Parts: sequence; C-alpha cells; structure tokens
Amino acid sequence: MRELTYNAEGLIPAIAQDAETREVLMLAWMDAEALRRTLTTGKATYWSRSRKEYWVKGETSGHHQRVVSVAADCDGDTILLTVEQTGAACHTGNHTCFFTELTAGDVA
Amino acid sequence: MRELTYNAEGLIPAIAQDAETREVLMLAWMDAEALRRTLTTGKATYWSRSRKEYWVKGETSGHHQRVVSVAADCDGDTILLTVEQTGAACHTGNHTCFFTELTAGDVA
Repeated sequence: MRELTYNAEGLIPAIAQDAETREVLMLAWMDAEALRRTLTTGKATYWSRSRKEYWVKGETSGHHQRVVSVAADCDGDTILLTVEQTGAACHTGNHTCFFTELTAGDVA
Repeated sequence: MRELTYNAEGLIPAIAQDAETREVLMLAWMDAEALRRTLTTGKATYWSRSRKEYWVKGETSGHHQRVVSVAADCDGDTILLTVEQTGAACHTGNHTCFFTELTAGDVA
C-alpha cells in the first residue's frame, strides 16, 4: 500500500466528492482501520472524533455513501473519496456541508 | 464573520476545487491571517506547516489560484475554495494532487 501519513492522533482527513454532481460534500477523518473498512466494504466509514467510534456514513440517517473510488494525494496525507451519495450528505439536510459563503466583508 | 473552528495549531484545512473541471485539486492549511489574505486579495494563500510561513500559491511556480468563491462547512472547521487554477496544482506536474488510486488490495 502507498505510504500514508497520519497526524498525531493517528487520523487523516478524507474529502468526499459526489461522483455525479462533482460537488465537494464534506470532510471527515479516518484512521487506518476506517480506511480499511471503507476500501473493503465500499461504504464510506469515518472515525468520529466527538463520539470516538467508527461511523458508517448513513448508518442512522440512511444517507449512505457508496464508494466509487479512493485516492491519496501526492504526499499521502489526505484522502479523496468519490461517492454515490444517497440523500443529503449534511446533517442539516443540505446536499453538501459547504453552504456558508465567506466574503472579504467577513474579515474586514 | 461566521465562527470558524481552528485546530490546536490555529489551523483549518482548506480544500481547493477547480471551478471549471470541478476536480478536487489539493488540501492545504490556513490560519486566520491566511484566510484573511485569501479573501481580501483573491489569491489562495496558505500556511506552510513545513516552512512555517505564508505561501501564496503559485508565487514561485507561477501556478496561481484565483479565488472564485470561499465557503465554510456546517460546523465551521473546514474551508472550500473554488479556484481558477493556472497550470498544475500539484508540484509533481499533475493537475490535481489526488492521482494515486487506492484499492481494497492495498489493505488486504
């Protein structure tokens, strides 16, 4: 396996992108086991930093992410998942978590 | 400004997406000042964790990122930049940093 670099907590950021709309849906975290489960089951599986447990996306909401492909970046410290997203990726009901626009006025 | 959550090092992950191709190009890190510079100059500006300095993307390579829009995610701990990428985003010459595919065989 390509060498991956995990942070001090043993985690690596994982970006999920919608395979169809190409929207960036969310960023969550994986440890090596979450990545193994993601690759072997085809279901996006993250490590919940708040709940300190594995989190199969959609397990409670039904909003699963079927993994289409997984890539590591050039220095092996970020993962990109391309997924078929069922329903909304965001717990707010938005399709993507990135719905809050920031402008220069926000930092003036 | 929308409240953002920075990590223990005062940093927040920033994903850059190509506005035209919709490819996810890279993930880098920003502190509050890098985000301020990004929003006010329209040039993607990161914090280099290895060099410990601000890093205007393309300043040495010429491969600039002109910022089209900036969004925060629902819990304010990740930034998404939509950019017009000049040349390759990746220092390897690839358009995107995410060119290394991972498969279940990698973790068998």
